[in-house]
Amino acid sequence: MYNVGIIGATGAVGQELIRILEERDFPVKKLIPMATERSIGKKITFLGEEHEVILTNPSLFSDMDILFVAAGTSVSKELVPLAVNEGVIVIDKSNAFRMDPNVPLVVPGVNDDHLHNHKGILASPNCSTIQLVAALKPIQDKYGLNKVVVSTYQSVSGTGAAAMTELEEQTRKLSLGEEIEPAIYPKQIAFNLIPHIDAFDDNGFTGEEMKMINETRKILAEPNLAVTATTVRVPVMISHSEAVYIETDKDFSIAELTSLLKNTKGLIVDELTQYTTPLDAMGTDEVYISRIRKDIANEKALWLWVVADNLRKGAATNAIMIAESLIKEKLL
Amino acid sequence: MYNVGIIGATGAVGQELIRILEERDFPVKKLIPMATERSIGKKITFLGEEHEVILTNPSLFSDMDILFVAAGTSVSKELVPLAVNEGVIVIDKSNAFRMDPNVPLVVPGVNDDHLHNHKGILASPNCSTIQLVAALKPIQDKYGLNKVVVSTYQSVSGTGAAAMTELEEQTRKLSLGEEIEPAIYPKQIAFNLIPHIDAFDDNGFTGEEMKMINETRKILAEPNLAVTATTVRVPVMISHSEAVYIETDKDFSIAELTSLLKNTKGLIVDELTQYTTPLDAMGTDEVYISRIRKDIANEKALWLWVVADNLRKGAATNAIMIAESLIKEKLL
Repeated sequence: MYNVGIIGATGAVGQELIRILEERDFPVKKLIPMATERSIGKKITFLGEEHEVILTNPSLFSDMDILFVAAGTSVSKELVPLAVNEGVIVIDKSNAFRMDPNVPLVVPGVNDDHLHNHKGILASPNCSTIQLVAALKPIQDKYGLNKVVVSTYQSVSGTGAAAMTELEEQTRKLSLGEEIEPAIYPKQIAFNLIPHIDAFDDNGFTGEEMKMINETRKILAEPNLAVTATTVRVPVMISHSEAVYIETDKDFSIAELTSLLKNTKGLIVDELTQYTTPLDAMGTDEVYISRIRKDIANEKALWLWVVADNLRKGAATNAIMIAESLIKEKLL
Repeated sequence: MYNVGIIGATGAVGQELIRILEERDFPVKKLIPMATERSIGKKITFLGEEHEVILTNPSLFSDMDILFVAAGTSVSKELVPLAVNEGVIVIDKSNAFRMDPNVPLVVPGVNDDHLHNHKGILASPNCSTIQLVAALKPIQDKYGLNKVVVSTYQSVSGTGAAAMTELEEQTRKLSLGEEIEPAIYPKQIAFNLIPHIDAFDDNGFTGEEMKMINETRKILAEPNLAVTATTVRVPVMISHSEAVYIETDKDFSIAELTSLLKNTKGLIVDELTQYTTPLDAMGTDEVYISRIRKDIANEKALWLWVVADNLRKGAATNAIMIAESLIKEKLL
């Protein structure tokens, strides 16, 4: 049994973390939910008991075995090294350490071998990366990846709880014919799309797009993989969707490839005229794959439509699965 | 001056047609707005005068010079040949004749040369095709197209006025915590995505995806162009958006390519950190291009974010521009 700390316990991902620790019977001896000042005193129910949220404080780290960090990148940069110094195993949801060569970036079921040789920090990938590599991995193993072109349709919960409120309020006001004023997003998100997630890089890609590219290459251990992305925010509450075009190295038949994906743990596959929408995936821990079809112009190309709950599979569930794998492999 | 008939005058596209005929000072001698029985008697205002909508009737065709048909494919299949027999020039918005080798499929500014040798019918392409080829054409001319991979984000007005009402009503009911029952779409569209536009083909592509592929090849006169698409309905009222990945034959610099697009009539180009959302494009006749950037893995590849008002540029405006081009080229 483990003493488990959570930084960001009252955020969109933090709340899912606590729910999923319960659901999966994670061996928690003591839960230590932490947050910033404005959440202090809030109550969190875990396994029927109320826990008061306390202010994040490095002096608490010495009491922990595992620490989940679901806050911003700057928080992680500051606090994660302090926790590691206290011998805590840290599973970090932020972007702070993902590309650090000393930090395994892990999606259990995809690259569990990367767990070995960790140095106290394990990074959980960006939500849009997790569902992408879950779909790509079996195809990479069997057919090889020549090229991957992804367009995303990402829900507002990826931005956080305040963005969900913004979509809800904008929608309500517009329905009443009232004026709206964007706050969290640079433009109106209700009944609109924003092809701008994270800051723009000098090369014209956004931070979100660069994360997908770099993290996918690291997780699939192909540093030069031709993977590219456009990421778009859509007026959906929960679940990210991705239209994924893939070129393989080897020939494949759609029947064989579909069967391969069907037999991959963690994937749920719809055939031909069935498909998954973000609403269908909400509240689940699987990655849904549908619209599987061979391209018309290229025998070695195919499309997938990939959907997953970004708060669960894309964040909280993956972080907890990393901890479970560490326990199973006696790496914790 | 011309006698102009419109079939489908009270639909989403028909209403735009009438507004844009006014806006562009189209040389209308007499307007003959037609529709199905349930719209008979409705009044349409054109240039300050009220016109009563009348029942579509082939006996009226002999009085017309130009007929715009903005109804379903089956209506076009039945009525367009009858109008052509009466010597009417028909501009058809439906899918009925687009791939007929005897029918020019035209986007003015892109393939005006196809207007010649028409045999009475001119087809206006699918909305998602029009904005795509507008963006591709200058690139094709200067650098050649090696591959095009498109994911679409299509508004509900593409389905018609009833779908706009469905999105509005679902949104309102969900805001009030009421149950909703999808009618026009197979699944909930409010706060959701539906990767299913038109019927599924045996190859797993949808009709909408096949239209984009086949029409793009025909308009760009490259019957074997490697173009492929996933088309998705999003909870947006008006304007379609497309994430377009392009591989060129020849080398290009982003500065030079951006300048090329900027100097192409009908395109509006945003640079680097600026971008167009569906709301920004609504009510306009231009195709907006932003997020122009060179791929990281491939020197001869780039991304574009292409947005246009699907009712105007993607439908009504394009149909009227076809008629204007015919007049200008003395082909009418």
